[in-house]
Amino acid sequence: MTYRAPVEDFKFVFHYLANMPGLLDLSAFAGVETDLINAVLEENAKFTAEVVAPTNRISDRQPPVCQNGKVEMPSQIHEAFKHFVDGGWQGLRHPEQWGGQGLPKLLATATTENLYAANVAFSLCPMLTDGVIEALLLTGSEEQKRTYIEPLVSGKWTGTMNLTESQSGSDLSLVTTRAVAQADGTYRLFGQKIYITFGEHDLAKNIVHLVLARTADAPPGVKGLSLFIVPKYLVNPDGSLGARNDVWCASIEHKLGIHGSPTAVLLFGDQKGEVGAGAVGTLVGQENRGLEYMFIMMNAARFAVGVQGIGVSEAAMQKAFAYARDRIQSRAIEGSAGPVAIIHHPDVQRMLMTMRALTQGARAIACFAAAADDLSIEHPDPEVRRANQALYDYLVPVVKGFSTECSLEVTSLGVQVHGGMGFIEETGAAQFYRDARILTIYEGTTAIQANDLIGRKTLRDAGATAQHLIQCMRQTLQELQQHASNPHSGEQSEWGLIVENLTLAITQYESVVAYVLDQTKDDIRAVYAGSVPYLMMTGYVLGGWLMARAALACANAQTENTDTVVSAAFMKNKRATAVFYAGVILPRAQALALAIHQGVTLTHAVERSSLMD
Amino acid sequence: MTYRAPVEDFKFVFHYLANMPGLLDLSAFAGVETDLINAVLEENAKFTAEVVAPTNRISDRQPPVCQNGKVEMPSQIHEAFKHFVDGGWQGLRHPEQWGGQGLPKLLATATTENLYAANVAFSLCPMLTDGVIEALLLTGSEEQKRTYIEPLVSGKWTGTMNLTESQSGSDLSLVTTRAVAQADGTYRLFGQKIYITFGEHDLAKNIVHLVLARTADAPPGVKGLSLFIVPKYLVNPDGSLGARNDVWCASIEHKLGIHGSPTAVLLFGDQKGEVGAGAVGTLVGQENRGLEYMFIMMNAARFAVGVQGIGVSEAAMQKAFAYARDRIQSRAIEGSAGPVAIIHHPDVQRMLMTMRALTQGARAIACFAAAADDLSIEHPDPEVRRANQALYDYLVPVVKGFSTECSLEVTSLGVQVHGGMGFIEETGAAQFYRDARILTIYEGTTAIQANDLIGRKTLRDAGATAQHLIQCMRQTLQELQQHASNPHSGEQSEWGLIVENLTLAITQYESVVAYVLDQTKDDIRAVYAGSVPYLMMTGYVLGGWLMARAALACANAQTENTDTVVSAAFMKNKRATAVFYAGVILPRAQALALAIHQGVTLTHAVERSSLMD
Repeated sequence: MTYRAPVEDFKFVFHYLANMPGLLDLSAFAGVETDLINAVLEENAKFTAEVVAPTNRISDRQPPVCQNGKVEMPSQIHEAFKHFVDGGWQGLRHPEQWGGQGLPKLLATATTENLYAANVAFSLCPMLTDGVIEALLLTGSEEQKRTYIEPLVSGKWTGTMNLTESQSGSDLSLVTTRAVAQADGTYRLFGQKIYITFGEHDLAKNIVHLVLARTADAPPGVKGLSLFIVPKYLVNPDGSLGARNDVWCASIEHKLGIHGSPTAVLLFGDQKGEVGAGAVGTLVGQENRGLEYMFIMMNAARFAVGVQGIGVSEAAMQKAFAYARDRIQSRAIEGSAGPVAIIHHPDVQRMLMTMRALTQGARAIACFAAAADDLSIEHPDPEVRRANQALYDYLVPVVKGFSTECSLEVTSLGVQVHGGMGFIEETGAAQFYRDARILTIYEGTTAIQANDLIGRKTLRDAGATAQHLIQCMRQTLQELQQHASNPHSGEQSEWGLIVENLTLAITQYESVVAYVLDQTKDDIRAVYAGSVPYLMMTGYVLGGWLMARAALACANAQTENTDTVVSAAFMKNKRATAVFYAGVILPRAQALALAIHQGVTLTHAVERSSLMD
Repeated sequence: MTYRAPVEDFKFVFHYLANMPGLLDLSAFAGVETDLINAVLEENAKFTAEVVAPTNRISDRQPPVCQNGKVEMPSQIHEAFKHFVDGGWQGLRHPEQWGGQGLPKLLATATTENLYAANVAFSLCPMLTDGVIEALLLTGSEEQKRTYIEPLVSGKWTGTMNLTESQSGSDLSLVTTRAVAQADGTYRLFGQKIYITFGEHDLAKNIVHLVLARTADAPPGVKGLSLFIVPKYLVNPDGSLGARNDVWCASIEHKLGIHGSPTAVLLFGDQKGEVGAGAVGTLVGQENRGLEYMFIMMNAARFAVGVQGIGVSEAAMQKAFAYARDRIQSRAIEGSAGPVAIIHHPDVQRMLMTMRALTQGARAIACFAAAADDLSIEHPDPEVRRANQALYDYLVPVVKGFSTECSLEVTSLGVQVHGGMGFIEETGAAQFYRDARILTIYEGTTAIQANDLIGRKTLRDAGATAQHLIQCMRQTLQELQQHASNPHSGEQSEWGLIVENLTLAITQYESVVAYVLDQTKDDIRAVYAGSVPYLMMTGYVLGGWLMARAALACANAQTENTDTVVSAAFMKNKRATAVFYAGVILPRAQALALAIHQGVTLTHAVERSSLMD
């Protein structure tokens, strides 16, 4: 069984939860019709299933190695990458001005998820290229844009992001890489960066490194960081490649997962280049504003990593469903003539439904966020743009943190559904488990996302965005209540369950937001002790809200008997998943809320002990 | 930093939660004093830390391979195994009659946990040998006991358990291995078994396989399974080794973790032996009662695997604490002059405390269960024996299922605390994550444990054992309430938190037990849909109860100012952990209870969809 893109779920979520029709009405997307969106979805499904997915095991089993500073990728990966470039997939959501297709980010959320699902290690290269493009579009000089963006958008060159040093991970104030200004306006960089994804490889002719470094007179801390473009090969004025720059791959890490992604240690200024001592770089924007610029790239990458979590979850889930339908073992719980496929056993169903509910819940949040991103850029009304920017900013750490934490659970359940076979590497379930494990770490750990969610996204606007979401949820609750009380709506207990648990979850979410706002003045440690629980709770509640909206949309479509974008069978399944989400997943919000509210007692208890000495 | 056995926690749990003093008063343990127990704990701590723990990385990095049917173990593993045998560790809890030391199973719970923590792959060999010894002690003929038990107890030979075939995993009714009766009273076995842990290796002179197979006229299903002893080398009447038997290792699996444990495919009757066609075996007990006998071994192994979960959790936790104390990154949340060790960051503390609370909670349950096991065998009063047998039987699936599920979370948090370093294999945190992943699968998946807990352990005695536990918990609650209302007890909010959340958890546990009993008549599928949640909930509540008892014991020891078995610092930390458990871990029981009670609605929703078609 091979991976197949969840095209029907994307069509459903686009239409009913992320208002794709409204988006396509914007003048920015003039000429883009639903038919085109669907055609891209189908073409992307074909590409990811037929070209990329078959390389997933190869990426795992033939990890690239570094020899004499060079990293050779397997031939099958070269071939897949060539198809990726030829298909124009890198340019999907980038401006037509630079050779892209200018399609909605909402659509790109789907196409990238499918790529991540098919081979997450491979997909990291395009993901980082996307980030470099976004950063240069917003902060690069005209010359920098002219030089770099078109080859990046076409996929001819690839990009990387250079932040981490061995003493400087989550805390970028400790970065020591130096940038020395030259008479010609360029800089020479000296230092060592670690964990550089696709920092060296032979898929593309050139690699464009974005590097955080410190100029000679820079202030200490994060306010002294500047951002530089350091290409592997210098670029001549006519766009052709020049001298080999002084940036070198020293080694490739031996990792738990994503073996197919070369994670490089890069040495800048090791004096082996054709340019003399020091890697030649050009400053992006102004000095000492590097972190701010890097955050543009990082925000794009954070959202993308969240979508990776969803993609890997989807792939693991599909594999588990297929195995559970195939594997015959034990009689049915109610009795049966002989052994049955394990998909009929209640606990296997619980595991599969948990995988499905979490994956679809996280996908709904990500698409809802992507639509806000599109609106924040393309809507004609500045007030709508501003509101959607705030919404998207609030949702990015949730998409990143929640989707990736869920992917750990989903891929673990994927192993469990396979029983003993799941532990055998050849089965492939274990690869998803290993690959997913980086997702809650890179581009900012879940704790870093949670700090962002509390500090910059909840406290800074005094909870206004969170309150806006709560109002949206209460609106849905009213519709649900009307629906649940309608004698024709059927399955009363299911609607009752959704209404009851969503009501509770919203109330608790509101109380937790209030706790965060109030308690910060008195005991900031107590608040941050609940930071990840707050992030996870936000994810569970938003997912529950969107799944409830999905159930409503299915019911309304049935009642109105109109043409629907998906099949009747899909909608029946979506409703069952929404009920399962409400009954099994949403109650987790309650446990988290209880813990968050105990922040003061808990931190005091730990402080009085000697555990942290 | 290397692993160190948690000796102080064992002393504490033995004394205050598992009534070791009462156990040592039994005549069966005449001559065994607390001093001896402590001396064994200290000696075992030395052995596991100095001899075994240093082999853990070797086991992972040099997985044994099968060449021409032979499996060579690395020299360092040979050396560690020699120390293990010379130290007499295999015989600790086995009868003195056969060369063992006849010490309490409660003590063995500690010594085996430490072995599992130090190198879980290595420890599987002794674990299975323990199981074979237990099965033969209870079901072997006098001759079988005389032939096999002493060399197994001494560690000279090792044992294995042969159940699984490729079509027969959780469902043993599908076993097809044949046993053909011979004129001399022996049998010849033909078939293939998979997933045989330490099924072949060169650590010991002989390997004693216990094999489930079907005789010619056996009824179909599990009622036609018989148990056979099939030694790798036949044993002469004088105990010396004879002909090489017709059982062969065909291959070793390539697994996600526990690389150091050779997981063999074994061929019986492949005609390569010195005995002609068919592996020579002798029947254990009576024909067709094999599954019943195998369950003796399996119950011992299930408890042991639960303890493995605790051991791997402890090792992962120690590593995470050490890293968090060492790694300097970012300022303190309240502000600090410079960056601080990450152990001071609230979310790192949350992760570490979660690891600690789950590990210590699971350990308390396991030791509580082990004490019941000892009493069920050694207590002079048959009624006490019976009651403790029922208690132990109820707890075995909880120890197995809960401790191992917790180990997945704990080892995952262990990776997370290390940040990017956690994903790099050389760090070692990832190994725990990979090794732990088998624990919820082998010796019966968590779902199999949960079915056992519901079917044989809750329904069969109409909830009597569960009710007994609830009474014990209510007793503790009374003591806690008295304590919480005592104006001298201090830290009122902490006692209040424990009382409040434990009260809620007990009430919900009681309601879930009632639900299981009631609902089974009407809708068995709805009950089993909540089987794993019921198991996990039982674990969370029992852990919360025992941690609350631990907090009480610490407070009482402080008040009474008596000599204590552990340091004052340890007790302060234990109390903080108990508060954290009550505030953060116990509320999970609530989320699970809510989901369990929705069983009918949830299963109906899934049944009406086409998800499981």
